[in-house]
Amino acid sequence: MSLPARKETRTATVTRPAEREIRTERVFDAPRDLVWRAFTDPKLVARWWGRGNPLVVERMELERGGHWRFIEHAGDVAHGFEGRFREVTPQERLVQTFEWDGMPGYVAVTTQQFEELGPDRTRVVTTVLFHTMEERDGMLSSGMADGLNDSYAALDKVLLRAGDR
Amino acid sequence: MSLPARKETRTATVTRPAEREIRTERVFDAPRDLVWRAFTDPKLVARWWGRGNPLVVERMELERGGHWRFIEHAGDVAHGFEGRFREVTPQERLVQTFEWDGMPGYVAVTTQQFEELGPDRTRVVTTVLFHTMEERDGMLSSGMADGLNDSYAALDKVLLRAGDR
Repeated sequence: MSLPARKETRTATVTRPAEREIRTERVFDAPRDLVWRAFTDPKLVARWWGRGNPLVVERMELERGGHWRFIEHAGDVAHGFEGRFREVTPQERLVQTFEWDGMPGYVAVTTQQFEELGPDRTRVVTTVLFHTMEERDGMLSSGMADGLNDSYAALDKVLLRAGDR
Repeated sequence: MSLPARKETRTATVTRPAEREIRTERVFDAPRDLVWRAFTDPKLVARWWGRGNPLVVERMELERGGHWRFIEHAGDVAHGFEGRFREVTPQERLVQTFEWDGMPGYVAVTTQQFEELGPDRTRVVTTVLFHTMEERDGMLSSGMADGLNDSYAALDKVLLRAGDR
């Protein structure tokens, strides 16, 4: 299988479909089973989620009701993130809560849909639902889109290597 | 100090002030510092929160960002509840998330306001904010009001005894 000809970094589409929601969409040049693993296998997650920063996966109980907790080390600062899985449908759908230690008790619900566009092409559509519009807008103004694009650029590399291509 | 003359069981006022909210209000014949302790001291919480059912307080980290987790034993069934503290203002205000193991990933935000009505009289006003109206209505139709009144009736007794009156 040949390398994708395209070299530029793709950007995710980020929209606000409803008052308390963010929707993002991004296509990856990899088969859906590999993209699913990259989002759910702790060893693979650790290699891209922190956008180049070291990431420690403290918990990753991939089942309904299971908890997850990551620590991202950005220089001297450690940022904790955690949540719980609401729905785990392998290769198709992942619904989980998301909370940053810096704003404890502010919980968003993230729904990720993995769409097979072809044997080597997968779209990930993510919606994030907040309790209030203020929380949603706070997340957007914190530079969420840039952070997401950095993470996804790191994920592109993980997918290339993990796919042995 | 004399016992309150009133003997009947009070009921909490339960309303729906907004699309995704429940508001409850209940007056207790006890000083505010004692009511606060009954809501935050694990030993006291264990005596009323389970409405007569044994309750194990697994975690109760009473500070911003701290976690809480209770297990209520109802016959042979164990129900887990958990969340995290968003705000802890002693004797005044407690904001925390609430999640039942039976519906993992469905997180409500509970705000409790403790109002001093007199030296021996305290009103607790609780608002619960859900991500969706469906979650709010599901909570109401699960018998939440009855459960709350049972808990508060048990709390009345704890307050009487803890106050040494």
